[in-house]
Amino acid sequence: MSAVRLSSNQYGKAENRVVRVYRDTARHELRDLNVTSQLRGDFDAAHTRGDNGHVVATDTQKNTIFAKAKEVGIRSPEQFLLALADHFTSEFDWVTGGRWAAEEYGWSRIEDHDHSFYRSAPEVRTAVLQREGDQDHLLSGFHGLTVLKTTESGFVGYPKDQYTTLPETEDRILATDIATRWRYSTTTGVDFEATYVKVKKIILSTFTDHYSYALQHTLYQMGERVLAEVPEIAEIRFSCPNKHHFAYDLERFGLENPNEVFYAADRPYGLIEATVARDDVADSPSAWAGIAGYC
Amino acid sequence: MSAVRLSSNQYGKAENRVVRVYRDTARHELRDLNVTSQLRGDFDAAHTRGDNGHVVATDTQKNTIFAKAKEVGIRSPEQFLLALADHFTSEFDWVTGGRWAAEEYGWSRIEDHDHSFYRSAPEVRTAVLQREGDQDHLLSGFHGLTVLKTTESGFVGYPKDQYTTLPETEDRILATDIATRWRYSTTTGVDFEATYVKVKKIILSTFTDHYSYALQHTLYQMGERVLAEVPEIAEIRFSCPNKHHFAYDLERFGLENPNEVFYAADRPYGLIEATVARDDVADSPSAWAGIAGYC
Amino acid sequence: MSAVRLSSNQYGKAENRVVRVYRDTARHELRDLNVTSQLRGDFDAAHTRGDNGHVVATDTQKNTIFAKAKEVGIRSPEQFLLALADHFTSEFDWVTGGRWAAEEYGWSRIEDHDHSFYRSAPEVRTAVLQREGDQDHLLSGFHGLTVLKTTESGFVGYPKDQYTTLPETEDRILATDIATRWRYSTTTGVDFEATYVKVKKIILSTFTDHYSYALQHTLYQMGERVLAEVPEIAEIRFSCPNKHHFAYDLERFGLENPNEVFYAADRPYGLIEATVARDDVADSPSAWAGIAGYC
Amino acid sequence: MSAVRLSSNQYGKAENRVVRVYRDTARHELRDLNVTSQLRGDFDAAHTRGDNGHVVATDTQKNTIFAKAKEVGIRSPEQFLLALADHFTSEFDWVTGGRWAAEEYGWSRIEDHDHSFYRSAPEVRTAVLQREGDQDHLLSGFHGLTVLKTTESGFVGYPKDQYTTLPETEDRILATDIATRWRYSTTTGVDFEATYVKVKKIILSTFTDHYSYALQHTLYQMGERVLAEVPEIAEIRFSCPNKHHFAYDLERFGLENPNEVFYAADRPYGLIEATVARDDVADSPSAWAGIAGYC
Repeated sequence: MSAVRLSSNQYGKAENRVVRVYRDTARHELRDLNVTSQLRGDFDAAHTRGDNGHVVATDTQKNTIFAKAKEVGIRSPEQFLLALADHFTSEFDWVTGGRWAAEEYGWSRIEDHDHSFYRSAPEVRTAVLQREGDQDHLLSGFHGLTVLKTTESGFVGYPKDQYTTLPETEDRILATDIATRWRYSTTTGVDFEATYVKVKKIILSTFTDHYSYALQHTLYQMGERVLAEVPEIAEIRFSCPNKHHFAYDLERFGLENPNEVFYAADRPYGLIEATVARDDVADSPSAWAGIAGYC
Repeated sequence: MSAVRLSSNQYGKAENRVVRVYRDTARHELRDLNVTSQLRGDFDAAHTRGDNGHVVATDTQKNTIFAKAKEVGIRSPEQFLLALADHFTSEFDWVTGGRWAAEEYGWSRIEDHDHSFYRSAPEVRTAVLQREGDQDHLLSGFHGLTVLKTTESGFVGYPKDQYTTLPETEDRILATDIATRWRYSTTTGVDFEATYVKVKKIILSTFTDHYSYALQHTLYQMGERVLAEVPEIAEIRFSCPNKHHFAYDLERFGLENPNEVFYAADRPYGLIEATVARDDVADSPSAWAGIAGYC
Repeated sequence: MSAVRLSSNQYGKAENRVVRVYRDTARHELRDLNVTSQLRGDFDAAHTRGDNGHVVATDTQKNTIFAKAKEVGIRSPEQFLLALADHFTSEFDWVTGGRWAAEEYGWSRIEDHDHSFYRSAPEVRTAVLQREGDQDHLLSGFHGLTVLKTTESGFVGYPKDQYTTLPETEDRILATDIATRWRYSTTTGVDFEATYVKVKKIILSTFTDHYSYALQHTLYQMGERVLAEVPEIAEIRFSCPNKHHFAYDLERFGLENPNEVFYAADRPYGLIEATVARDDVADSPSAWAGIAGYC
Repeated sequence: MSAVRLSSNQYGKAENRVVRVYRDTARHELRDLNVTSQLRGDFDAAHTRGDNGHVVATDTQKNTIFAKAKEVGIRSPEQFLLALADHFTSEFDWVTGGRWAAEEYGWSRIEDHDHSFYRSAPEVRTAVLQREGDQDHLLSGFHGLTVLKTTESGFVGYPKDQYTTLPETEDRILATDIATRWRYSTTTGVDFEATYVKVKKIILSTFTDHYSYALQHTLYQMGERVLAEVPEIAEIRFSCPNKHHFAYDLERFGLENPNEVFYAADRPYGLIEATVARDDVADSPSAWAGIAGYC
């Protein structure tokens, strides 16, 4: 029997729900994050011998996250994750890297009130930072933005075999939950807040502006335009369900249904995943390790 | 051993996901509902003898929902449920009543586009109609509207016993997911669309406009004002979590925390339920049968 | 405009996750509960004037739940809720009743080990106690027990109208998630542990022992037998989805499908609710207030 | 501005809920799967030009899954995914590979009945097959198996810094939801059913058999023993939460709590991820692409 080894590992505290309030003036500000910290480095002894001498407690990682929310503040999820990475990799010799991730939930003011808010953003903003020694991989993105167009979408010209029964159509509902992540080519000098707003706006706008031959066709155009307008982004990926809306067969009841009444199906659903990348930027598979989907 | 009886029953098809598109002009409209239909009446033989002669198939109820989405359309969840009730109680002699319910999901136009939408509403709109012979009970409401104020909330003056450890505070975060249902005193002559908008606006506005001594105090004021401004509503109920945000103890790390850094807890949570009703309107427990919470 | 009143209210701490370990011998025992406590009584001033003099803090209720897990222990969910009710209604004059609820999660020993367990029970056990002055309403039950039979089920003889398209069948899959609650006619002298095991066994056994003409037919027989064998139960209710398994149309591909390949649908689903009660026991609508479904 | 490219893509139909019944004898058998099929190959034209000539419809993939459940049957999730991969890569020239995944839900007979079952398995079994030309990557595993030991676990000897407040303990509850995936070094000649049972048994048994110095320590031993006993497995990964159970502070109420009453916390939680691999087997990062966690 061959010998075995601990070939990889990471550990930490997941889903720390941090709410940071800025209340220096009467007009308060709010950031609402779900933060995960995981460390990588020399933790072999903990696994193989039960020696925890290197194991920075996950409880300590939690305390640090909340302390840093005060000490460095939260100006963007990306900036906050970079600060956590700097802390842990400098504080402990044997921590050579790690993975830090955040979700952010968006709030708006109620009637422009100074300190009253409602959770308004339909989408969840995401950021994932992986550090390996000197190298950072930073992914930003969002998921949960559900969009739908009632026309200007079709699906024709696909191959037919013995299992094909789908009729072609040149008018259907196209609906999806947009989930996207983009990889930054740098972590310095980027205005993460402005970039987030810009990418989201491009994606929504592209959804409206063309006849869609398939979800693939639409996602590619979204990606193409994001890369054209945001130079700091090396590649952008999409992992989007085709949320089927089937025109209900009303002819059986003597009724017409010219794409007016639909059954919105849950499962199964189409699942379309695509990456649009710059020609002059190398792939970076390790940036995407541990990320579900988005192949 | 005493004899037994079928003392109550209802059955039907739950969670029919109906999307109704209005596309008579270039500017399309969209209603997105999740509809449940359940019938009551003389169904004893099905239970006691396996005789389905009265059992309008749940599949038939599903077909009817989609057909009615075309035949009568969906102008509001309430109007649609009333149409379903009219249909089933008139079509089948032995159907003496039932329960019809809907959730509605809110969409907005992307950049004011004619046929492209995103799911925007944070809250889920609800309606439940129960018919018993000549009597209708109609509840409307919503849930999932998360609100938070960063100050102008406290909790003091409560009784202390041997299990009390909570310190008093005059400045804390108050956060809740607003879940509310109101009972209409009539089902005719009501503009359900305008009323929904009005009630939601009153609730949000009231959340902002006072120092809150407790969530109970705030919910009561919301209810009082809704009843003052909407005469068709007989009573309004709230079932709202107190979503605790605990100021994180940073003094242990030599840091101050003047209500700037919070841990947002999941469980346990406070759960506050209250009904505000008109003095001159009788209670109607059967209108609320089968509704979770809201006691 | 008519005057308004606080017509009902209750409040407390929801979803306290209490794990109680008995470790007096080397063979440990474990109870794992999710407990909610809500008080009723004279809380008007809190709502109408922001006066919290009567508001037993929800934090105090939480502390009490954990303290009582030590002081009185957890021998059954029902016994524990009764102890909580006794405490709160005797400790505070103005608390005249309340609602206490629990879920319990079932664990089994790994390989009959003394202190190692895995979460084994597919179903969640439930108990709800409402106290109003001298009167107790106690419901026990469970949900999440998914059962399926591959034959000995059909659906024929139902009425047909213009919206009926369902073909009759005398052989289909019958599947449901059993959700049931039963009302005890007394809270004293009952062995809640043994009764729970017995009711679950009757329900499972009844599922197997007859040709089912419809889910209604099967649920009624379950209820009838429970009442026949457990004298302390006054009534039993079921709220069960008909989880549709549709035989997939394989003839289009030149294949037969004699009920071998099914598509398991999510939504919509049938929803069948029925109550079987003793003839000589009065209904008790208030026992079921606030319980979803089960009409 | 640099040119862009479609650097990767895959698409298909996700979450096809297939139930396969074997009813050749009176004693029926049942397999219950959730199957996803995604194709890779030459799909550039669909993305860049809206030309669907190569796009095997996701609806066709769905039909194929159900047809294959009849044609080749489901003897294990792994065998079924291999059959799907064989079909799609041989049927269409331009399909050079893909990703096929399944979840399986476990059922047991009710009282050893011939055709009545209940969903018994607490865990969800998983399988993921990726094919790239001639190369197959096959991962099997499960998630959702919750285990807990009431003693024989501690955490001491960890480093302390300014953010460390956790006290050391030599007696605590250790609880986790076991999620694991293992990579097979071959897809031929493996008895996937027997191997699944064996790996699960080793993992459960290892959980009981030692004092745990940390979850890392326990996971490593699980992995070590699986590799020692199952030669076809090249590596095994774990991604397991440390589900914290905090002894509730009852001293404030004059009560002792010798690890008898615990609060089971939801978030945050520890998250421990580790891979144990054979020394003589190379890493295979692409086998794990698109898998969440498990780094």
